[in-house]
Amino acid sequence: MKQVYLTGITTSGTPHLGNYAGAIRPAIEASANPDTEHFYFLADLHALIKGFAAEDVRRSRIEVAATWMALGLDTDKAYFYCQSDIPEIPGVAWLLSCQAAKGLLNRAHAYKAVVQENEDSGSNDPDKGITMGLFSYPVLMAADILMFKANKVPVGKDQIQHIEMARDMAQRFNHHYGEHFVLPEAQVDTSTAVLAGLDGRKMSKSYNNTIALFLPEKQFRKQIMKIKTNSLEPGEPKDPQGNTLFEIYQAFASEAQVEDVRQKYADGIAWGEMKQYLFEHLNEVLKEPRENYAELIAKPAVIGEVLHAGAIKARKLSQPFAAELFDAVGIKPMWQ
Amino acid sequence: MKQVYLTGITTSGTPHLGNYAGAIRPAIEASANPDTEHFYFLADLHALIKGFAAEDVRRSRIEVAATWMALGLDTDKAYFYCQSDIPEIPGVAWLLSCQAAKGLLNRAHAYKAVVQENEDSGSNDPDKGITMGLFSYPVLMAADILMFKANKVPVGKDQIQHIEMARDMAQRFNHHYGEHFVLPEAQVDTSTAVLAGLDGRKMSKSYNNTIALFLPEKQFRKQIMKIKTNSLEPGEPKDPQGNTLFEIYQAFASEAQVEDVRQKYADGIAWGEMKQYLFEHLNEVLKEPRENYAELIAKPAVIGEVLHAGAIKARKLSQPFAAELFDAVGIKPMWQ
Repeated sequence: MKQVYLTGITTSGTPHLGNYAGAIRPAIEASANPDTEHFYFLADLHALIKGFAAEDVRRSRIEVAATWMALGLDTDKAYFYCQSDIPEIPGVAWLLSCQAAKGLLNRAHAYKAVVQENEDSGSNDPDKGITMGLFSYPVLMAADILMFKANKVPVGKDQIQHIEMARDMAQRFNHHYGEHFVLPEAQVDTSTAVLAGLDGRKMSKSYNNTIALFLPEKQFRKQIMKIKTNSLEPGEPKDPQGNTLFEIYQAFASEAQVEDVRQKYADGIAWGEMKQYLFEHLNEVLKEPRENYAELIAKPAVIGEVLHAGAIKARKLSQPFAAELFDAVGIKPMWQ
Repeated sequence: MKQVYLTGITTSGTPHLGNYAGAIRPAIEASANPDTEHFYFLADLHALIKGFAAEDVRRSRIEVAATWMALGLDTDKAYFYCQSDIPEIPGVAWLLSCQAAKGLLNRAHAYKAVVQENEDSGSNDPDKGITMGLFSYPVLMAADILMFKANKVPVGKDQIQHIEMARDMAQRFNHHYGEHFVLPEAQVDTSTAVLAGLDGRKMSKSYNNTIALFLPEKQFRKQIMKIKTNSLEPGEPKDPQGNTLFEIYQAFASEAQVEDVRQKYADGIAWGEMKQYLFEHLNEVLKEPRENYAELIAKPAVIGEVLHAGAIKARKLSQPFAAELFDAVGIKPMWQ
């Protein structure tokens, strides 16, 4: 039996350099392995938790899909689809709701973090501003994972708990209704690059310090020039360790190239010069995918066709499996 | 614009006399009104909250559907379908989850009652034994109601809160995404009969004091004979007020017939005689529907066909409306 990997990509915001190095690139590389099966989906239902601007969700779905395609995901081999195009997922999420102890969800990190914020701010309602979407999304996430019998879910450390919750719901369901679900495992890869952003902190939407992956050349250069550096003068030797420019370069360069730049640091390259060097290098690396991306964004129908094919392929699995699960709990269309 | 009425029927257990007099009969009568639109659905997704026996859910779905059909629901006029056959419902429930404040659900009576029980029993986990299904079902119920733009939801007093919650979620959605949902109103009809059961308390599954509607004649008579009476002797005048036998009779008889029996009570009819009288009367009233019921139960494919037609009819509304709602939040299949 092939190992099945599943990755959800929340469709909020525009993909940035950090997403590429930390998640997209390793995922696309892994999906080339003929011995494993890979599911990549646009988690647009999850995106609804983040806010109410429909236009943001709409644009982000297109941008995220175009990004993965432009960077070379083999959408014929991998399963590549929108979560919202698999109507069986919310149905199975309901089945899992009936298994999930509320106490399990009470302990979810994301929920607890907001409760803590409310308490810290002196609110007398610990659930202030918390929707049922935010509270219950680990159940939806369990349905995403369990629906496709994923064995491995590559996640960051902060997501391990969600996989454990999915296992818990799956085990309870299997206990009551027989062995239907495969128990997924979190796969935490600590070797993937975590890029720093403009201000030196981890590049992240929430810090507003990201460098978008596919900006027009001029704007892209402008962003690179904005990266914060220290006040060392040209000619002074510089430490590559922990340096944002160096780390970004490293994430997109060969070992030989990295050694070369390490030498430049020792030789006291000026920050402005290094920024230009980094820009030229990234610009070269991203040139072709950027062109692909621009073409796709201009023709969203092409993205639509690929996602349609992906949804059809995925539903060949989700439809019979959801029917099996519903039948197991006593619910089968009476005309069948 | 026609007023739209919507009623959910939880598929747990076997329909009893109390269900008929209190809910099914008035609903079927109301549905004959050509000026109103009526939705009746088997709430089988809700039934999953009650327990894990798939066979109970399976049997109850057939029994409940057969009961409504046997009692004369015009399934061509009314919308009559299984909740689980409308896959748009759990999807829209997710959209509503992202609107529903968790605090709203914290205040749900059914949830709070279990928390109270846990606290009373000295448990240190107030959420002991509570699933996410139990906690979040008012959201699913809101989706049931809002999906079909129901104006009126006939409910018992204990259900008013659920309709208010559905209104709240609908209002928030409309506020953020434009006017899509119709705001439903609870319709509490205090005039409908509440029947007492075998032990004199309200006839209810939870008291285990019900008389099933469609028992074979012999068993049915046996049940009637079990109804608790007081120790007044034959010949002693009896008070019909609050008397279980009288009240059940009254719920199924004409005014003239009721007057006649009132006289029998004044004349001191023996309880055994009254039981036989009640049995014969009900047996006559239920004879034809009981035969219909037996035929349907023997041919579940006939029920299946009716529910299939009902699902097709209902989905002609739910599919485009769900698509409209998803589009409003920014989610539309990209190939459309």
